[in-house]
Amino acid sequence: MVAVVDVPGMVRLLKAVGVERFLRELTDYISADFVRWPAFEKSARAASHSPHGVIELMPTSDGVLYGFKYVNGHPVNTQTGKLTVTAFGVLADVATGYPLLLSEMTLLTALRTAATSALAARHLARRDSRSMALIGTGAQAEFQALAFKAVNGIRRIRYYDLDAHAMDKFAANLAQSGLVLERAHSVADAVQGVDIITTATAAKSRVALITPPMVHPGMHLNAIGGDCPGKTEVAAAVLGQARVYVEYTPQTLIEGEIQQSPGVATTELWEVITGARPGRQSATDVTLFDSVGFALEDYAALRYVRDLLQTGPYGAELALVPEVADPKNLYALLS
Amino acid sequence: MVAVVDVPGMVRLLKAVGVERFLRELTDYISADFVRWPAFEKSARAASHSPHGVIELMPTSDGVLYGFKYVNGHPVNTQTGKLTVTAFGVLADVATGYPLLLSEMTLLTALRTAATSALAARHLARRDSRSMALIGTGAQAEFQALAFKAVNGIRRIRYYDLDAHAMDKFAANLAQSGLVLERAHSVADAVQGVDIITTATAAKSRVALITPPMVHPGMHLNAIGGDCPGKTEVAAAVLGQARVYVEYTPQTLIEGEIQQSPGVATTELWEVITGARPGRQSATDVTLFDSVGFALEDYAALRYVRDLLQTGPYGAELALVPEVADPKNLYALLS
Repeated sequence: MVAVVDVPGMVRLLKAVGVERFLRELTDYISADFVRWPAFEKSARAASHSPHGVIELMPTSDGVLYGFKYVNGHPVNTQTGKLTVTAFGVLADVATGYPLLLSEMTLLTALRTAATSALAARHLARRDSRSMALIGTGAQAEFQALAFKAVNGIRRIRYYDLDAHAMDKFAANLAQSGLVLERAHSVADAVQGVDIITTATAAKSRVALITPPMVHPGMHLNAIGGDCPGKTEVAAAVLGQARVYVEYTPQTLIEGEIQQSPGVATTELWEVITGARPGRQSATDVTLFDSVGFALEDYAALRYVRDLLQTGPYGAELALVPEVADPKNLYALLS
Repeated sequence: MVAVVDVPGMVRLLKAVGVERFLRELTDYISADFVRWPAFEKSARAASHSPHGVIELMPTSDGVLYGFKYVNGHPVNTQTGKLTVTAFGVLADVATGYPLLLSEMTLLTALRTAATSALAARHLARRDSRSMALIGTGAQAEFQALAFKAVNGIRRIRYYDLDAHAMDKFAANLAQSGLVLERAHSVADAVQGVDIITTATAAKSRVALITPPMVHPGMHLNAIGGDCPGKTEVAAAVLGQARVYVEYTPQTLIEGEIQQSPGVATTELWEVITGARPGRQSATDVTLFDSVGFALEDYAALRYVRDLLQTGPYGAELALVPEVADPKNLYALLS
């Protein structure tokens, strides 16, 4: 039997564990797997493009467990009340090839993206950071805000979105979170005096939301919205002001902010976490995490969910693989 | 909600429809999709190899539907009572990226492999073929026998396997099938006087089960067991005696019998089905279908299962994708 966590199952799990504890523990799982970075197969995504969007399969393995995520990206979906991005994933046993866990990953992707942002900021932001500007209050926003609260000690969020309804929604969702929420009138207003800037917009093209005058010594920038070819959020000149950190340089050069400046020097996050290369070196450094999402983060998230399922009756089961008395007698299932 | 067919669901579906009707209709679905061959994305499998076996993702799309199969190959599994090959797959809507159907595919892969063999034989075997030798009576054997009965009018099966228990199992499973079953003492004995030879062994290396003296004018050879690098069942010299047909030449050159003779001329099955290139041209031709399995067959099988689900209460449902009132308010799922 394969363990199954569908969307209601993931919601039950999140409510039982608590979203902030979930984000803290997930950050630690992702950190532990980034430390083992050289052990992972890093293959390209298998992408199927159509005029409507893209469907991708993102596999990875460390030789013990194998994980893959199915994820779509269809910006037109919101016109019909559907989500732009949905996902599900599977964790399997490398020794037998049998699947172990099937999980929804629409929520889990939002959670692992936020946890990865918080992990990067743990190594790259000033330790005394307490305020963050959040540009873009769409589907990712609450998860980002709560991860930075739970993991990095952020207490105050200045937020801005072109869509006033999206700002209302964000403020309502986090009204009881304990965060101080400050609604801004523009991007420039939002970034006033903050320690960290997170960009998480759905901009479809190369836009320069963050420009050099907005960036001050000591800031950390967390750029998560620029994540596919032709989609960036930070002015190219800002990349020259900052130390740039990425998940995996070959992928980020195609999908991230640095597609604008292929010559910029990068450090991979796992190198910082293992201590092989420096993260922030002074209180005046400007650091930028150019995040595009990587299969290892999904693997870590599936591994965390699988371990959580051992602690309570959260999951269901599905007979996705036959059990037979004689492996040569598959036909016996029909008699 | 995503429709789900687990292993018990597939068994219910097969019993309700009947295995032979299922195989006939599935053959027609595969044929219909082979006719549309140029419309399909033909990408390489994403394979993850380990010392224990391989895990593969096999995607394809025609721009309307997208399908992928997860399949493992672990020969060592039989030592612990597990299946060498298990599989499951997903069919999705290209326009939205949303998954539509999740199905077990261990049974379905055996069925589609048999249906593809029968489809090839419909175009390549003599129309008056009534007898078949079946070399290897493992997990695939009953499905092959029933597909050739249902689609090609085969009435008599001469079967042989190194494992006497596997032959007992085969005979017991098909005792009520209406097929005349003749147990042979060797490969050479099994092929005596037959119209078609099907090889479906689990040989792990290059073996020459079928040699030139066994092959007579007018025969059709259906070679399904040679399906990965280093694994072949037919002597290289036999390839020189036959017209060779394949699913997709670039893949078969790596995985099929023709890995032994890369220079051999091949015709792709879709070209025969559409009439673009000839199949059998005389009653004395020797034809050989060098089958390795192709993503399009899995796509057709998933499409057939999806259509069958419309005809009765066979499937279940899984909330694998969130339903939200506002696509920007994913967090609402938690409140």
